[in-house]
Amino acid sequence: MTYFDPVHETMPREELDVLRLERLQSTLNRAYLNVAHYRRAFDDVGILPEDIMSIDDLQSLPLTTREDIEANYPYDMFAVPLREVVRMHRPSAKSSKPVVTGYTRNDLINWARLVARYMVASGVTKDDVVQIAFRYGLLSGGLGMHAAAELIGASVIPTGVGNTAEQIMIMQDYLTTVLACTPRYALVLMDTVKQMHVNPRALRLKTGIMGGEPLSLELRKEIESGLGIEVFDNYGSSLVMGPGIAGECQVHEGLHVYEDYFIAEVIDPKSLKRLDPGEKGELVITTLTREAYPLIRYRTGDITSIMEDSCPCGRTHMRLSGFYGRVDNSFKVKGIMVNPSRIEQILSEQGVDTRFQVRVYMEGARELSEVLLEVKEGLFFDEMRAQETFIERIERAMYAGLGVRMKVKIVPGAVISGRGVVVDERP
Amino acid sequence: MTYFDPVHETMPREELDVLRLERLQSTLNRAYLNVAHYRRAFDDVGILPEDIMSIDDLQSLPLTTREDIEANYPYDMFAVPLREVVRMHRPSAKSSKPVVTGYTRNDLINWARLVARYMVASGVTKDDVVQIAFRYGLLSGGLGMHAAAELIGASVIPTGVGNTAEQIMIMQDYLTTVLACTPRYALVLMDTVKQMHVNPRALRLKTGIMGGEPLSLELRKEIESGLGIEVFDNYGSSLVMGPGIAGECQVHEGLHVYEDYFIAEVIDPKSLKRLDPGEKGELVITTLTREAYPLIRYRTGDITSIMEDSCPCGRTHMRLSGFYGRVDNSFKVKGIMVNPSRIEQILSEQGVDTRFQVRVYMEGARELSEVLLEVKEGLFFDEMRAQETFIERIERAMYAGLGVRMKVKIVPGAVISGRGVVVDERP
Repeated sequence: MTYFDPVHETMPREELDVLRLERLQSTLNRAYLNVAHYRRAFDDVGILPEDIMSIDDLQSLPLTTREDIEANYPYDMFAVPLREVVRMHRPSAKSSKPVVTGYTRNDLINWARLVARYMVASGVTKDDVVQIAFRYGLLSGGLGMHAAAELIGASVIPTGVGNTAEQIMIMQDYLTTVLACTPRYALVLMDTVKQMHVNPRALRLKTGIMGGEPLSLELRKEIESGLGIEVFDNYGSSLVMGPGIAGECQVHEGLHVYEDYFIAEVIDPKSLKRLDPGEKGELVITTLTREAYPLIRYRTGDITSIMEDSCPCGRTHMRLSGFYGRVDNSFKVKGIMVNPSRIEQILSEQGVDTRFQVRVYMEGARELSEVLLEVKEGLFFDEMRAQETFIERIERAMYAGLGVRMKVKIVPGAVISGRGVVVDERP
Repeated sequence: MTYFDPVHETMPREELDVLRLERLQSTLNRAYLNVAHYRRAFDDVGILPEDIMSIDDLQSLPLTTREDIEANYPYDMFAVPLREVVRMHRPSAKSSKPVVTGYTRNDLINWARLVARYMVASGVTKDDVVQIAFRYGLLSGGLGMHAAAELIGASVIPTGVGNTAEQIMIMQDYLTTVLACTPRYALVLMDTVKQMHVNPRALRLKTGIMGGEPLSLELRKEIESGLGIEVFDNYGSSLVMGPGIAGECQVHEGLHVYEDYFIAEVIDPKSLKRLDPGEKGELVITTLTREAYPLIRYRTGDITSIMEDSCPCGRTHMRLSGFYGRVDNSFKVKGIMVNPSRIEQILSEQGVDTRFQVRVYMEGARELSEVLLEVKEGLFFDEMRAQETFIERIERAMYAGLGVRMKVKIVPGAVISGRGVVVDERP
């Protein structure tokens, strides 16, 4: 077993808990002193940072929601002056209100070191040629993975997403050994490999560094056998940091949460009570080192469960069992997070009040999605031309509001099984 | 005047020349010892690295062409083992054969420091919010600018190119002060600002960090008045390094070549003889510090002239007067370099042997381009359907071969003024 940071990754539980509590207290103080939102939230429940004497006391503090963050857009959740912020990112989820996160220089250093833990656990060394096929830019995937691979000293090819045929050529010519991308983009690459009559076994690829969306057992197997690689899963959340919050080890049984940097809780999204290990619920994260953007009990919306038993890999950090979708029924298509309630809102802005259903499906290697609207008298028209114009207008509004193209179709009510239901037909 | 690296930027000429010669000799040795191509090329003219006793002696060494680099694809121009390469990039120019460049950790550090010189000369400080609207990924623009802005400690927003309306919203909300992009993308942003009824004077923007394509006086004025900013131009070349080879100072009279890192010569592209200051010709660059990818007398294909007179800014580095297009008639559209000879090659691969002309133009804020093919008996058809199929096939081949969509039209011979002529109708 190799570690990037053996001292912290295999730290005895007692020492780790002392370190965590120290870091938690300093995070709570920083947040209370510098972020008006947290001061108000703590005052509302009558708790001062100094009242939190154990990790367990954290439960008495309020949760932080996406709405809290939206209400403080753009910079009111920042705990340092803007001049100390050296980077900004935002999540892909386009909701009604935008959000932004910030990083100090130390935050970026920590981020690279955390993603590097995950890459080293996957066997990546300075001898590897790592192709980063995550999206670069405002989304945190590309730059997050990139910095870690460079820190390890691998040869990094920043291909980003797209130009798939060229990416295959690069894999062949540059002798790529490690592919970093979302599981779904791995499927697209597999499909293109097939179309180009390239033998995947003739490539030097040995490892897949995945993340960005839930990875089912079936999907993992398909990618592993299709590309002849070993796949490692990783958990990220843009506002919390980006990729590198938790990552698989070579045991492949769950994702270790880097507990010296984050506190993970799983709660019942309805009762908001903390759940026991093994019970599935919503992941709640508290950051322990973020300077620019501390988050206290942030509701990620991601569904998982905690595994507390020790792992043969030697890491003392607890694991998450895997990811099982979103509390709010959101889904990702072409890397963009789409929330059905946002679709409802866009429809309503366009004067459409009707039941709708979303369908996400594959056409060859292409991910497509469509919104099925229930036909309604007075709202839709017999006249073909007017209907076309109507559909075009809604499709434009969807694209502007979601950042991804969705087809719009008008269907009989019987086809629709509920308001805002998402039918995901992807493998 | 502020400098990022005052010692080297204002180094007295004599000291600078000593430093340059030392670095040149070490570069020549490294290239001769580690790159078979250079060993052969030097041996062919019977010159050993130790024979080069002055900067001027450099003229006796052979030029390095794009063809030399293509012949050594992918890794044979690298002067270090792959395990020491931490990054790879490739230029946008899709020619018949692909090329790739590599960077060691030191190369990346030097690169960030050089782009930072240019940004600091433009007045960027850690208090700025810098929006990087250059393309991230395999092209060197985005990551090159990004690393420098972070090194300075500015708040960096890695937007990349595209999602223009969102970029405007980010400018407003995040209080962007510095915009980094190509001149043509600045025009697209200006256009969208207008469409969105945003008052550019109400933005916090003060500086435009441009590069990636020639910036004419008219274009500069249009951007400066349209966005209410001061524009600084910068010269880059992907294989040489990326952005940051030469940059403007606040005097705005030419671009200082960072002479402690590069030797710039201007030659007549036909006779290959060195030209005098003031004479326009092809820029030839020799790298003085690149470890992974030293280039000796590399023909950039870019047309400029040298200004040797001293600059009031205090920098002792000579300047280039500006850029006036490409020796080979290449042009950029949507950030992609297109070479007319490549178009000719694609047509020939598709069995088309006819005169053609390229037209590049704007439709609103969109850059478009089209290839006009001379109608020819036996080659083109009266039957509408067959012609459509033919055009679709050629358009697909163009997109696959060039990386940018070009419309294809069949026109009477009289419309075409020569074989491979490029008509650029952009402002």
